[in-house]
Amino acid sequence: MTQLDRFQRRVHRVIPVARAMEVKLEDYNGQQLLVSAPLGPNHNHQGTGFGGSIYSLAVVAAWGLVELVLEDWELKGQVVVQQGTMDYSEPVTTDFFAIGALPDEVSVERFRKSVLRHGKGRINIQAHVYCGEPLFAHTGHPVATLEGRFVVQDARAADQD
Amino acid sequence: MTQLDRFQRRVHRVIPVARAMEVKLEDYNGQQLLVSAPLGPNHNHQGTGFGGSIYSLAVVAAWGLVELVLEDWELKGQVVVQQGTMDYSEPVTTDFFAIGALPDEVSVERFRKSVLRHGKGRINIQAHVYCGEPLFAHTGHPVATLEGRFVVQDARAADQD
Repeated sequence: MTQLDRFQRRVHRVIPVARAMEVKLEDYNGQQLLVSAPLGPNHNHQGTGFGGSIYSLAVVAAWGLVELVLEDWELKGQVVVQQGTMDYSEPVTTDFFAIGALPDEVSVERFRKSVLRHGKGRINIQAHVYCGEPLFAHTGHPVATLEGRFVVQDARAADQD
Repeated sequence: MTQLDRFQRRVHRVIPVARAMEVKLEDYNGQQLLVSAPLGPNHNHQGTGFGGSIYSLAVVAAWGLVELVLEDWELKGQVVVQQGTMDYSEPVTTDFFAIGALPDEVSVERFRKSVLRHGKGRINIQAHVYCGEPLFAHTGHPVATLEGRFVVQDARAADQD
């Protein structure tokens, strides 16, 4: 089972709302995480995407990215969202997806050193939400953007498999 | 059936995620809307409240408040969230509730006039989230706070019952 398959199972097991939203972990390239959701279970009173679902998908993309990056560093810790700001620019009219992306290298390195040295750290992650086919190479404009601040606590070396 | 009962049914019918979250419309006093959710379907990887669920409950409290206030004014329109900023100050460890509250009277009156004159308007609504028994008179500190900006479009006189 791949790292992403394992993470998909974990997300559905530990976050029931992600299961109800039918969140799918699509792709991870070490720098970005791509997650998708169908419009069906996530619509609102207007038949477009519910603002809470769009935010939740973006949070899973950003939070999940931090979890996977920690795993790549052979660390595990408690990752939680501390603040999230969501801007909605267009209605979500189709199935949709979110791409969580690491910030600049200096910020990532500062975060990595803090987690290694102190077992905790803080990082800002942006996640853009798009309509349509889930692809990293998507060229359209985002329909919504999350600016999230995430904190890691109690980080330690991951158990070896 | 009371106004709140009707709204409860509408929310569960038109927002499937609110049904999955078991959102309950608890009370409305013309100025504030109280909505609750159990921790069970809304937990995260740590067994505390999922950040996306907490945000979604706060958005329902704020969005629902605008819908109900429009109804009191005998208007109906399309109410959507344009921006939301969520600050999480403490983990949600029990069932939880959110109180959406109207801003100062001057802002409400400006919003009302804009909707009446132009069929559209914009209003900022704050929703605090608390743990425990859902009451307007709750005295604890909020565990999270949403600052939401909502827009109303295509407002018109509501059909008479």
